[in-house]
Amino acid sequence: MASPRYPKTAVNKFGRLANRGVYDYATIHTLINTCPVLHVSFNDSKHPFPVVLPMLGCTGNFSSRDADPNTTEQDLYIHGYVSGRIFKHGKESNDEGLPITVVATFLDGLVLALAPFHNSCNYRSAIAYGYATLVTDEAEALYAMELITDNLLPDRWAKSRNPPTKAELNSTSILKVKIASASAKIREGGPSEDRADLKDKELVKNTWTGVVPYWGTWGEPVPGKENGCGEVEGYIEEWRVKETGKARAHAFEVIEK
Amino acid sequence: MASPRYPKTAVNKFGRLANRGVYDYATIHTLINTCPVLHVSFNDSKHPFPVVLPMLGCTGNFSSRDADPNTTEQDLYIHGYVSGRIFKHGKESNDEGLPITVVATFLDGLVLALAPFHNSCNYRSAIAYGYATLVTDEAEALYAMELITDNLLPDRWAKSRNPPTKAELNSTSILKVKIASASAKIREGGPSEDRADLKDKELVKNTWTGVVPYWGTWGEPVPGKENGCGEVEGYIEEWRVKETGKARAHAFEVIEK
Repeated sequence: MASPRYPKTAVNKFGRLANRGVYDYATIHTLINTCPVLHVSFNDSKHPFPVVLPMLGCTGNFSSRDADPNTTEQDLYIHGYVSGRIFKHGKESNDEGLPITVVATFLDGLVLALAPFHNSCNYRSAIAYGYATLVTDEAEALYAMELITDNLLPDRWAKSRNPPTKAELNSTSILKVKIASASAKIREGGPSEDRADLKDKELVKNTWTGVVPYWGTWGEPVPGKENGCGEVEGYIEEWRVKETGKARAHAFEVIEK
Repeated sequence: MASPRYPKTAVNKFGRLANRGVYDYATIHTLINTCPVLHVSFNDSKHPFPVVLPMLGCTGNFSSRDADPNTTEQDLYIHGYVSGRIFKHGKESNDEGLPITVVATFLDGLVLALAPFHNSCNYRSAIAYGYATLVTDEAEALYAMELITDNLLPDRWAKSRNPPTKAELNSTSILKVKIASASAKIREGGPSEDRADLKDKELVKNTWTGVVPYWGTWGEPVPGKENGCGEVEGYIEEWRVKETGKARAHAFEVIEK
């Protein structure tokens, strides 16, 4: 089944470098769900600058929990605190919620050309626009906490103390974002040179061109002072080695495209 | 000399977890200048959602080029395209420019506690708020292009073809942000547990707790199809090995704090 697409609207369509634009659920939801930190932006009526916070989150579908994010509509669940003042008095807030933007970015490499003007970066960046509300339903908050925990480290929810206490549940702030629009932008490949530069034999001979790949590495776990479990558990070790390997492989693969 | 601080104002002061807040130039400017991708946010009057774009940039001081960013006022120079429509008709734009927010985030590790509620991340995130204008002065645009190129890869400007052609200069869009306010937030250390969880001997015995460190790795350079320089140049190799080593060391160091 082909992955559905977010419709192109005035909000998400690209003007510049539109050929790098991607709109399908699979690409966008995967970027959001694999990016270890999201950037979340919204307005605060106290000043003219958008607020941008790093937060944890992922996509989910509370009414259809086993739905495949590649093919079904998803909401965004974000673990993070936003002042009630902003929710209630946000200048753009309406019955749908607070307008919010969520971004997931991966840098995949530095692309070096003969001239700085043609340098570039390989990257993937997904952006989702929507209306955020606070999750107040207890069952949905629990669902979202488990989802976000396991999205970061699979199985951690089951393998640590659960459920949360009543006090923990009450003091956890989960935002649910109904996605109004979304898109992604991807740059792959090697340098794209100017013809005149390529004719300059001295320049070509003296200037290394290509890609320095970049990826996030999950290193060897360091036990906490109060760890009483001995060696790091297998599922954690498997996860970090696999994730790092996938990230590394991706940074090299995209150079050949 | 102590590093000056950004004043605490309604814009940048922290409400929640205020003890994690940092305001000095050295910390904030260093985070911005070492982060390989910045997130830049501003409003588009066409819709209620802040726009967030990944861009390249760093701090600089055109009127005092050799000034130390740890101790002197800095502007932000951002390499990236923002539609003229947004500049001219931005609802918040005034004579000072377009209100813009620039964020630099590093994830340093995943902090695993006995209960998901106490999981956390080690991270560093700097945020700068200011007014952006397009750089139109040719000398300043050249200064900023060299600054941004060498901030990403030291010496690359001198070691590749420069100066840019007239056409290149005209089609490069550089934003200059006068910083109105800035701050940073930093989380270091290992897990912080609930007392009741620590008393549960079975839980402690069966649940690994600690930190999985995380850092960005610059991998082995891959030559482009048109590379005519042979082996990768030494200054590139030195830079990528040194940067990766520093990033890795930092992720482990902060665990002990």
